[in-house]
Amino acid sequence: MCGLGTVAQGVVNVLRDNRDAITQRAGREIQLTHVASRSLKPGVELGAAEFSTDVVALCKRNDLDVVVELIGGEDTALDLVRSALENHTSVVTGNKAIIALHGTELLTLARENGCYLGFEAAVAGAIPIVAALTRSLAGNQIDWLAGIINGTSNFILTAMTQEGRTFQDALEEAQRLGYAEADPAVDVEGIDAAHKLTILAALAFDMDFRFADVYTEGIAGITAEDIEYAGQLGYRIKHLGLARRTEAGVEARVHPTLVPKGQLMANIDGVMNAVLVHGNAAGPTLLCGAGAGDRPTASAVIADLVELARGTALLPLDACDSGIKMLSVEETHSAFYLRIPALDQPGVFAKVATMLSERDISIEAVIQREQAINTESAEAWVPIVILTHKVVERVMNTAIAQVQSLPEVVGKITRIRVDQLANG
Amino acid sequence: MCGLGTVAQGVVNVLRDNRDAITQRAGREIQLTHVASRSLKPGVELGAAEFSTDVVALCKRNDLDVVVELIGGEDTALDLVRSALENHTSVVTGNKAIIALHGTELLTLARENGCYLGFEAAVAGAIPIVAALTRSLAGNQIDWLAGIINGTSNFILTAMTQEGRTFQDALEEAQRLGYAEADPAVDVEGIDAAHKLTILAALAFDMDFRFADVYTEGIAGITAEDIEYAGQLGYRIKHLGLARRTEAGVEARVHPTLVPKGQLMANIDGVMNAVLVHGNAAGPTLLCGAGAGDRPTASAVIADLVELARGTALLPLDACDSGIKMLSVEETHSAFYLRIPALDQPGVFAKVATMLSERDISIEAVIQREQAINTESAEAWVPIVILTHKVVERVMNTAIAQVQSLPEVVGKITRIRVDQLANG
Repeated sequence: MCGLGTVAQGVVNVLRDNRDAITQRAGREIQLTHVASRSLKPGVELGAAEFSTDVVALCKRNDLDVVVELIGGEDTALDLVRSALENHTSVVTGNKAIIALHGTELLTLARENGCYLGFEAAVAGAIPIVAALTRSLAGNQIDWLAGIINGTSNFILTAMTQEGRTFQDALEEAQRLGYAEADPAVDVEGIDAAHKLTILAALAFDMDFRFADVYTEGIAGITAEDIEYAGQLGYRIKHLGLARRTEAGVEARVHPTLVPKGQLMANIDGVMNAVLVHGNAAGPTLLCGAGAGDRPTASAVIADLVELARGTALLPLDACDSGIKMLSVEETHSAFYLRIPALDQPGVFAKVATMLSERDISIEAVIQREQAINTESAEAWVPIVILTHKVVERVMNTAIAQVQSLPEVVGKITRIRVDQLANG
Repeated sequence: MCGLGTVAQGVVNVLRDNRDAITQRAGREIQLTHVASRSLKPGVELGAAEFSTDVVALCKRNDLDVVVELIGGEDTALDLVRSALENHTSVVTGNKAIIALHGTELLTLARENGCYLGFEAAVAGAIPIVAALTRSLAGNQIDWLAGIINGTSNFILTAMTQEGRTFQDALEEAQRLGYAEADPAVDVEGIDAAHKLTILAALAFDMDFRFADVYTEGIAGITAEDIEYAGQLGYRIKHLGLARRTEAGVEARVHPTLVPKGQLMANIDGVMNAVLVHGNAAGPTLLCGAGAGDRPTASAVIADLVELARGTALLPLDACDSGIKMLSVEETHSAFYLRIPALDQPGVFAKVATMLSERDISIEAVIQREQAINTESAEAWVPIVILTHKVVERVMNTAIAQVQSLPEVVGKITRIRVDQLANG
């Protein structure tokens, strides 16, 4: 095992706590023989395992069945995994970044060297979504999937929704509780979710790993006002990863999304993760659980180890489709929530409605208040809140630009995509 | 394939619709070579498969990789599966009854003959719960699981809750929609759910299949009144299968249960199924989806076939614990909802409370109305509704018997178990 951080310690502890059950299911004992960590973390009992600080040397040994890579980060971890696979040693990793960015290369390398590369732990912690896509739903064509796949963002949005906190306040609470890093950018800007969505899309659509083609938008722009208006319209705001196969190509995007309150996905709260997969045979299947944490992530690592131990791990598919067209976000279709800060004058809404209608954007619902909810800025303007029907995003962009240029529009228009999480 | 009913036709159709994807994932084409059905069902295109009406002969052939048993029922199906396994042919089945009743024997037979016996389709349709328990959660000790595993009962309870229907009315609606059989007993009396719970408990606790030890109670006794009172107390009534490992032994029971409204399980509606598993590493994992239907069940059958085709199916464990003590329902602990029809006289509630308190049963909440909700019987009696804390069921039974014998208690006491779906 490379690394001895939180998750690695979880693996050590769970392997010890559940040894008998794991041995029975795996058909043999899973033995931790060598541990390498660049910085020694005391406080975890390694049993008979040999400890060193040389992670590079560990991955070059010839006497290991499998290397468990849990050092995190990108460059060194990538080198280690490459090195182990080139050395014909199978790898189990929880590193979403290297799989999202180099998955195609690493799986090819594994295949060429007759090795396995397990990464159940790289997506959504304990939730068995990699197994679901590669095994349990193997009889399906996957039409689309949607996931709450970043616990930090979900915790923040839940706190904003349930307790009326601001983004900044909720973020600080997440940091206090250890759910967010001191530098929260990777989580709240959606990068972490985009890594995971890249992996889910590759598995769902038998395609290569295309992180660069995933549209990514974080939650820092979401305000208490938007959460309030969304609630009035029957929606909750969730940070979703969405991947869909359409006739025109595959779309993959990560962004805040209005989800109907009645959907289970709208009720996945706090740091919980969930992935909803729609297969053309199974219909919708939702999996939810702990998306992070030492023991939940260890559960996923050990699942991969057990498959390896009993000889039932999956070799990487020997052909994935690298010719699939990925749609840019401008080519995708969404319904939209728009919040337009406009002067409180007669005829403004009519002008906006006309501009939308000229582009065949139909309006599903409108909220127009007497006064701005935000009392600090209770001047003579009102927010016009509009929920549209589905439209291609490029057209919506043009419409928003035109509305934004109206002299009566006094602030930046907020737009959030809406998804019913249903077919069609 | 034995059988050509709804699910079997689903398998034929999905294998055809998704042939390319399935072939790629399985590493070879899954070919339907022979179909036997006692009664010919026209209208499904069998391609190159040979058709006969002799299901027995089919299972005795020596040239098959796998027999898919989908004839349903018990006796003939059991004979067919035995026959195929004795003949060294692997079997995939969706037959929950034969696995629940004969799973230990059949898995032993499979192991002795070097065959596989796949039964993902036997529990909760498309939901990959068998794979979750045997593969993805293999690193865990499972503490407990709870499931909505009968779509008919869940449909009826949902219609009663959301539309205020009576049990009889909701049942008839389910029958009109094809969700319930003309003879609904197996579903509404909980037998079907008990079959599935038997399988889940065997897999979760690495034990033998003990259908006879599962306590089973259906939903026919649930009234609109109980649903209304449960709602006032913050609960919904769901028909759950519950299995738990305790120091004293394993409990497995199927019965209507009050579940806190905030739990996702309380919001699994209509014919959807869901299983919540609590592992000691993963924590809580919830899987939900279509629990029945031709294509969802076909999805599970094909998942097993793909594992077989690529050589990654699981051989049955070579040791399951047949010495585990199963607790009788009287030995289990639950909180209880009690509805006591009592004369509207001073002091009745005090008497009831005293009888409970004498047995250390503490009361969490009480609803006492001025008048019975049921206006037809609005005589001079009131229902006393009590929610208790946890107590061992044997003690609760004695207390209920004593309260029932009070002269002021004018009708049969209703009692429904309550579960928080949380640890402890």
